[in-house]
Amino acid sequence: MTWIEDPAFVADAPFGPQTLPYGVLPDGIAVRVGDQALPLRPLADHFGGLAELVAADNLNPLLAAGRPAWSELRARLVELVSATSAPRGGALVPITGAVLPFEVADYVDFYSSRHHAENVGRIFRPDGEPLLPNWTHLPVGYHGRAGTVVVSGTPVVRPHGQRRTSEGPVFGPSQRLDIEAEVGFVCGGPVASRLSPSRAVDHVFGVALVNDWSARDVQAWEYQPLGPFLGKSFATSVAAWITPLEAFAVARVTPPPLGNDVLPYLAEERPWGLDVRLEVEWNGEVVSRPPFREMSWTFAQQLAHLSANGATVRPGDLIASGTVSGPARDERGSFLELSWGGKEPVEVAGEQRTFLEDGDTVRITATAPGENGSVVGLAEVVGTIAPADAEG
Amino acid sequence: MTWIEDPAFVADAPFGPQTLPYGVLPDGIAVRVGDQALPLRPLADHFGGLAELVAADNLNPLLAAGRPAWSELRARLVELVSATSAPRGGALVPITGAVLPFEVADYVDFYSSRHHAENVGRIFRPDGEPLLPNWTHLPVGYHGRAGTVVVSGTPVVRPHGQRRTSEGPVFGPSQRLDIEAEVGFVCGGPVASRLSPSRAVDHVFGVALVNDWSARDVQAWEYQPLGPFLGKSFATSVAAWITPLEAFAVARVTPPPLGNDVLPYLAEERPWGLDVRLEVEWNGEVVSRPPFREMSWTFAQQLAHLSANGATVRPGDLIASGTVSGPARDERGSFLELSWGGKEPVEVAGEQRTFLEDGDTVRITATAPGENGSVVGLAEVVGTIAPADAEG
Repeated sequence: MTWIEDPAFVADAPFGPQTLPYGVLPDGIAVRVGDQALPLRPLADHFGGLAELVAADNLNPLLAAGRPAWSELRARLVELVSATSAPRGGALVPITGAVLPFEVADYVDFYSSRHHAENVGRIFRPDGEPLLPNWTHLPVGYHGRAGTVVVSGTPVVRPHGQRRTSEGPVFGPSQRLDIEAEVGFVCGGPVASRLSPSRAVDHVFGVALVNDWSARDVQAWEYQPLGPFLGKSFATSVAAWITPLEAFAVARVTPPPLGNDVLPYLAEERPWGLDVRLEVEWNGEVVSRPPFREMSWTFAQQLAHLSANGATVRPGDLIASGTVSGPARDERGSFLELSWGGKEPVEVAGEQRTFLEDGDTVRITATAPGENGSVVGLAEVVGTIAPADAEG
Repeated sequence: MTWIEDPAFVADAPFGPQTLPYGVLPDGIAVRVGDQALPLRPLADHFGGLAELVAADNLNPLLAAGRPAWSELRARLVELVSATSAPRGGALVPITGAVLPFEVADYVDFYSSRHHAENVGRIFRPDGEPLLPNWTHLPVGYHGRAGTVVVSGTPVVRPHGQRRTSEGPVFGPSQRLDIEAEVGFVCGGPVASRLSPSRAVDHVFGVALVNDWSARDVQAWEYQPLGPFLGKSFATSVAAWITPLEAFAVARVTPPPLGNDVLPYLAEERPWGLDVRLEVEWNGEVVSRPPFREMSWTFAQQLAHLSANGATVRPGDLIASGTVSGPARDERGSFLELSWGGKEPVEVAGEQRTFLEDGDTVRITATAPGENGSVVGLAEVVGTIAPADAEG
């Protein structure tokens, strides 16, 4: 029995002692224990040389400290939360009020689900090959807007944008507002470039769910030839709690084959993805269960690729996987795919729905298998659509 | 006669008292006066309430302070550099050792020269319309990598990357390394969104030349469907000195017509661009004089567009214009265009050249007309190509 009395702080619940994700509450860094949080600043004395890192205002100093510090901190935390009596300074608080736990340096979004890429290809280019020729040779990705990454719970105001109509382009609130259920990797360690896939793992601090909200009508009109821009840059939501990569030790799975060899800089002897199982709730109803194990490109390959040209990976870089979609209809990670471009509505609470309406709430959660039959949780990323701002 | 004895600190030289660009030397913020610099930290007492801003480590606090502070600081500086005797703490230093003068928040690159967009269209899609249909309706742009923006003078290591060959994709040093001569706008003021073009001007602190180095072979293979990524993210060079927007009061010009009306959120009663005249030197030889007055989209429209969906503009955002190209061959701002995709070599110092070779140096400079016949300078952005890193 531990001193932490929370019915959700047990090994078969997602935020038991096997998970211990980090977040930032108004008073600083905290660790989630069940449905409560343990603030670390009052406990700083227990962490020796790591005291400054845990007393910081956000996770960036900890991200910069690198793998040895992350391991040491986690080991110390496991001791503290397993103790039978509360350590000096140890007091639980509600998990409410969590803020964006780190300052995002660069935000990169990949496109690493074959099912998603093929679905989008079929919807947008019905007469062409669903997959473009580069897709099986490199993890396709692009830079997003770091400044509009927001913490889970932040309302998402329906964006204005330019879209094409038969009478020419018009400007107004997006009419095809969508989600993208993704898994994000939060980077840290020393600034580095030209990482091999095997070195990349030491530059990933932890994992957090991401919803890369997308205005499909804006995106469809703007994206040639330089890619998505305003169709994505209005909001990207990230979970408030980041689960350390170490918690996923037994969740490793072999990714599906690409169908061709990869070039040596992307090759891994034993590539591994994570068996993270997502669940997408639309207004409280589960509409999809995207399987992250279906992703063709691993985060190690993504980091190796993005740094192959000498680009540096910095603490605070956020690497999102791209929409997670599985082969089945109810495994698709976007409403574009679920409703097949709006043509095949989905039943949500008795209504036929395609894209997001004002007031809709989307909540994405996930779990992965943990040690000894436990369940490792990824904290929810949730957002509710607020009506567009008034014109002008 | 002023106390500043520098033969280049005169109104008909680019860095005379009409210009006064800001940079950061190892000892802090400085203002360039002719071919020397005036450090501001030792002068902080002269700036009243602005003392903290000028004593900061970089320009970010000044950027955040907004237009009233920028105007007050510039007025005070004009007084100080015009005085007949040196103010207390006033001492000139060499301009060497300048570092990146601000921390880049988000980096956005536009594509606002019709000549450039048409040239690229003709080179890459010879059978299609050179301009895509969205181009005259919105300023096309994309997010670049903020973490690899470097200060002028930083060597540019030839990037590795994946490119397509007739035998399939290969990985190695880029064989088509190119420049993009651009003009960058450094943003500041309060965090804001949904800016009108007329409000946008108060969110631009100053102007700096940019070279958005590009690996054309990498870009050509990777860019569908999500846009440029590793072909651009290895290095983006920015001038060490940022010329305040206020210095360009008489350089305003009417941009060329788009050929169609723009939607109201992009409309300006009297749109204006800047008559900035660039000069591209390749190994000491001027190979191009790109005219910035030829840009179709203004920075006010670019900022209005990028914030139209609710995206915030933050202090430290860097907005680059896209390659500046004029109608004539010797006004093209990239070697891709100058050599027409490598097919029409350019003579540089007696050699036939297409793309960049190791050891090549590219220096971009610019001037604009100033008050009373003076010349306003934009500091050089220069870089030399270093050989690719060893494999592995």
